[in-house]
Parts: sequence; structure tokens; C-alpha cells
Amino acid sequence: MTEIYRASTTAPVNIAVVKYWGKRDAKLNLPTNSSLSVTLSQADLRTLTTATCSSTYTGEDTLTLNGSPSDISGARTQACLRELRSLRAALEEKDPSLPKLSKMPLRLVSENNFPTAAGLASSAAGFAALVRAIANLYELPNSPTELSIIARQGSGSACRSLFGGYVAWRHGSQEDGLDSKAVEIAPASHWPEMRALILVVSAAKKGVSSTSGMQQTVATSDLFKGRVATVVPAHMDAMEKAIAARDFAGFAEVTMKDSNSFHSCCSDTYPPIYYMNDVSRAAVRAVEAINAAAGKTIAAYTFDAGPNAVIYFLEENSNLIIGTFYKLLQGVDGWKEEAKASSSSIQLEEAVSSIIQGGVSRIIMTSVGEGPVKTEQHLA
Amino acid sequence: MTEIYRASTTAPVNIAVVKYWGKRDAKLNLPTNSSLSVTLSQADLRTLTTATCSSTYTGEDTLTLNGSPSDISGARTQACLRELRSLRAALEEKDPSLPKLSKMPLRLVSENNFPTAAGLASSAAGFAALVRAIANLYELPNSPTELSIIARQGSGSACRSLFGGYVAWRHGSQEDGLDSKAVEIAPASHWPEMRALILVVSAAKKGVSSTSGMQQTVATSDLFKGRVATVVPAHMDAMEKAIAARDFAGFAEVTMKDSNSFHSCCSDTYPPIYYMNDVSRAAVRAVEAINAAAGKTIAAYTFDAGPNAVIYFLEENSNLIIGTFYKLLQGVDGWKEEAKASSSSIQLEEAVSSIIQGGVSRIIMTSVGEGPVKTEQHLA
Repeated sequence: MTEIYRASTTAPVNIAVVKYWGKRDAKLNLPTNSSLSVTLSQADLRTLTTATCSSTYTGEDTLTLNGSPSDISGARTQACLRELRSLRAALEEKDPSLPKLSKMPLRLVSENNFPTAAGLASSAAGFAALVRAIANLYELPNSPTELSIIARQGSGSACRSLFGGYVAWRHGSQEDGLDSKAVEIAPASHWPEMRALILVVSAAKKGVSSTSGMQQTVATSDLFKGRVATVVPAHMDAMEKAIAARDFAGFAEVTMKDSNSFHSCCSDTYPPIYYMNDVSRAAVRAVEAINAAAGKTIAAYTFDAGPNAVIYFLEENSNLIIGTFYKLLQGVDGWKEEAKASSSSIQLEEAVSSIIQGGVSRIIMTSVGEGPVKTEQHLA
Repeated sequence: MTEIYRASTTAPVNIAVVKYWGKRDAKLNLPTNSSLSVTLSQADLRTLTTATCSSTYTGEDTLTLNGSPSDISGARTQACLRELRSLRAALEEKDPSLPKLSKMPLRLVSENNFPTAAGLASSAAGFAALVRAIANLYELPNSPTELSIIARQGSGSACRSLFGGYVAWRHGSQEDGLDSKAVEIAPASHWPEMRALILVVSAAKKGVSSTSGMQQTVATSDLFKGRVATVVPAHMDAMEKAIAARDFAGFAEVTMKDSNSFHSCCSDTYPPIYYMNDVSRAAVRAVEAINAAAGKTIAAYTFDAGPNAVIYFLEENSNLIIGTFYKLLQGVDGWKEEAKASSSSIQLEEAVSSIIQGGVSRIIMTSVGEGPVKTEQHLA
């Protein structure tokens, strides 16, 4: 009888508060600067991946993504598979009693629990789940940080999705990239009150892909040099201190300034790259108005390579932040039951309210969460 | 009998291609960096100012602006009047036969030939006309560069409107600001083919004033340091070479990059300042599409502290550039007769065309022009 070997895992989405933008080595996905992210709860956003292999399988490795066959011949995916196989092969060499999984074709099946329509970059969760699932299948003893070096080669920010909570990606300096890896700054349990409200903004047209966009920025933005040399190092330092001290105002200021710095380098690229639109900017004004009304910084905006606004805040201020946006956006999908009970006296300017109402197509309510979780829920 | 002394002048608007943004001394309007502008034709955009004085006048100096009394008690206007009076007083001291104009109240009357609705900063033309008119009235022998030191104290960019053609404002280094002045890089006759099409964009709400905005940028933008230290000096040097060589592609690239750099520093300000909106960005895409269709750089965009797009191009390409926008915006005010005969085969993307059609409220067609002109057309 021939066995089928199988392992499954879930992996989370992460949203950076100090942004990754710019590669010093495009092949190895080595970044020009360190970055730091908050891992989001898998109850709301996760990728589930099952990795299977068997001596009865023939042909190439395959990946089925959200029900459709997906091409994995790309150099990045191949790099991940090659490195994981060689780690397994080393184990098999040390212990000849182990089944030769490294020689068997892989069948990978992966699904997101959030609609692609959400316009969230799913590659981070996707590559983290792929690497973690195969590592589980191969019973690799490697630590998440060691696996992050592999996941990074699939998609840079994927290395941060191998951990829960608050995660730094150290840029490293070695040419081989072996010191460019993710580490946990603090577990979700250190600061579990962190919440995130995502305003999904319908973009008129898809922007420049982040892969090509960041290369154009490195090549043409004069202001970007300052971001890499001084801005990001200062933001990393301040952010780690703010997280250690659970200082939300400090966390928020760095989060907002770093998002502004990143998007300013995009618009300083030649030709300029614009990811934020008037709806995104209205969300910035809304957060500023909420903080002004509260008399202190209780909300922080950040934007990735797209128009969606991610708003971080603490549980204690949920009612005020959720309430302010629920008043405007009751009609859109994604609100949780608790939102219906929320209330806020904060009145946004008409100009800001109407732009947000006209441009936000769905909501995601979530919070800080855990890293990848091994599961017995298998996809086939 | 008592005489009434009178002199009138017109002064032009200028649009910078290397932007002034940031003061090292707010009281004296001393800039953090040099800047360079193109003076626009007074046939299309000008301020006409008449300065009168008489021993029969009593009370304070007065200014009537576009038909309404205007407050001139502000420190900046007072600085200009004080300096001009002291120059006149020195002449009167040297030659006692001169009438004591420096002792007489001034009656200033000023009018713009363009609607305030155009949303163009008129302070540059306004202060240049005020200084030039009084200098004429006082028969001051001072050169335009010497007068630019006075106009600069009224409104920084006003110093550049004392010249026609292509004008640099040298930031200078002295504390007293006596070396922070405007000089002519090239007269309009050196490169008379330069044209400008201004797309007047209706802003949802008025942005941050440039005076307070630039101070916030100096205080809070980390990227701005790089703009001042390296970006602007390189742009000034490249721009002067491009103008000397009548190299439009070079002129255009620096113009676009400097506008991008300036607005990127605004969005890196904390809280961020946004002057460009989705309509402005659509204009950027339209210019990129025109240059792509032409196979070379024949148009350049630049944006001041507001959403209006100023598009520079050469006379030889008027038909293509004017034609592309006339097709979209026939309905709006400001087109000249020649536009109706223009034609362009360039098709902009639907997304870009519709945003421009929805957001541009008027057009100004103009070109490089001369500096202030003494006139016998007097306002009263």
C-alpha cells in the first residue's frame, strides 16, 4: 500500500506600520530597509493551504488557488519549493528510515477566506501558508525565523506572516540574504487590544504593481535616499519602543508618518506613482478629525500599495472609531454585529463624509492576531 | 496750486518650474532654497497698479484692490512701503529741489485682468506691481534686482515678477537677506516659443495657505531636508542649462520632477498637506500620454500650492497639446480662437478623460512674456 502524506496550515495577513518599499536585490527579495508589521486575526483574514505528496503522484508540482489551477513555474515559487525540498532531503540523508518525500511531486491547494474583491495583497499570507504547510509536511525542525528566509524569496512581506503579533523584518546586509529575516517583536498577547478597520476603496484603475513600482522608486526618486538612510531607521526604533511600552500615541504617529513618507516617495518617483486617491485622503482627514475630537491620538491611518485605508485603534476606543464610520457606511458589506450598536458624536465635514460615502465599497473589522496554525482541516 | 504725482505699471504672474517652498527666515521671506520661474504674458494675466501721492492727501496710505478697500497694515506690505520711502527720502536729501513725496500719503489702486475664480496666486504680480509702481512714482534709480529685494519681503515669489522671461531667485546666505534676490536667466526673446496651458481645477475645499504650509513642511517633513540639500541645487543647475540651450526635453523633465518633489514634501508634512487632487493627477497622466504618443517629451506639467495644472509646451506643438485638451473641454471658458482650429489624434484613456472633464472649470492659454511695463493707463 502507498501512503499519501498531508499537512495543512493557515497563515495570516499582515499590514506594515513601517513599510517595505525598495529592493537592494530583486532576485533574492532583499529590501533596502527594514520594516515592521501587525499580524491580523485569521478569524477575519487568512489563507488555508494543504500540502500533499505521494509516491503515486506523477508529473510536476501543482497549486490550486481558490479553486483554479495556478502557475507555480515562477522563479520565486520555485525558489521556495527548492529550498524546502533540500532541507527535507538533508533530513532524509541523515535518517534513511524517513520516507523520501523530497522526491515526490507536491499537490498544493490553497484558499483565502476573504474575497479578492477586498483588494488586499494576499501574497504575504499565501507564501507564508505555502512555506509553513510544506515545512509541516516535511516535518522540518526549522524555526519560523529560518523559514522566513525562504518565504521572503516568494514575496518579501510574506516573511512577516510567519509570526503573530508585532513582527520586524530585519533588512540584513549579507549578499546571500541569510540575515534578511523576520523576528517577533512582541506576541499578540503583549498588546491584544489592537484593532484594525479596513476601508476598502474602489480604485478607478489598478495602480502600478508594487514589484515594479518599488524598483522605479529606487531608480528615480531622489527623496527615497533620505527615507532609506534616516527616516526608516528612526521609525523602526521609535516603533519598537512604542510597541514595547504599549504607547498607542507613539505607535500611531510613526504609523501615519511612515505611510506618508512611503507614499511621498511613490509620488516622487518618475513618472510619479499614485496609490492613494481622493477617497484615501478623505480617510486621512477623517482620522485627523477623530483624533482632534478625542483630544488625543486614538486612531492611525496607513495605506499600502493601493487606495484602501487601514485604521489602527485600541479596543477601548472601538465605539468612537467604528461608530464614526458606521454612520457614514452602514450600507456597505463587512460590518460585524457590534458595529450596529456603536455610536459616535463625531461629525466629519460634509466634504470628507461625502467622498468617503462615495468611494468605500466594503469594510473589514479585525484585530491583531496569531501566526500560522497547523490544522486538521484539509483542502483537496 | 498743489500737484498730484502719479505713476502706473503692469506686472506679470510667474509660474515656477523649480519651486519656492520653505523659509529660513519668515519675517524677511528668506527661502530655504533657490527657485526659477517663467514669467507669463501680461496680455493674459497681469496686475495694473497706479500709485499716487499728493501733499493734499491726508491720513494713512490706502490700497484699493479690484474695486474694494484692502488692508495694508500687514507687516509685509508695510516693509515694502517703508523701504521704498526711505530710498525716496535719500534722494530728496541729496537733492533738496525734489518734491518731498516720501512725506506724502500714498493712494494705491490695483486691478487684475483675470478673475479671482481662476484660483491663481495673484500676490506675486500684486506685490511686484506695487513695488514697481511706487518706484516709478518716486523715480528711484534702483535696478529690478535691487527692487526684487523689497518685493520679496511682500511676497517671496513676487521678486521673480519684476523680470520677464526666465527668472531665478537666488536664496542667498546673508542674515539681512540682501543677497536673496531675483535675476534674469534669459529674456523672453531668448526662447519666445514657450507656451502655457492652465487647467483651472475646482477644489472641493481651499487647501492650507502656502505661508503656513511651507512652515509646516520645514518643521515636520524629513524628506524635505533632501530636497533642500541636493534635489533643488541639481534642478536649478539642470534647468539653467536647459534654458540656455533651449532644450525643451531637459526643461520639461526638471519641471515635472521638481513639481513632483515639491508635492511629495507636502504629503510628507505632518499632518500631510495635499494640494493636488484626482483631477490634478489625471492631468499628469494626460501629459504622460501626450508625450508617449509624440514619442518625445513635448509637454511638461507643474502644480503650485493648489490643484490647477500648468502645462508648458513649445509653439510648434500647440496644435497637438491644445487639441488634445480642447476635445475634452470645449465647454469651459477661456479658450482662444486658435483652439477651435486645433486638432489632435491623441486619445486619452476613458478614466483620465472623464476625470478631467468632470473637474476642470476653465482654461487659460498663455505664453512666456515680458516684465513690468510702465503705462499711461491710470486707475483712480
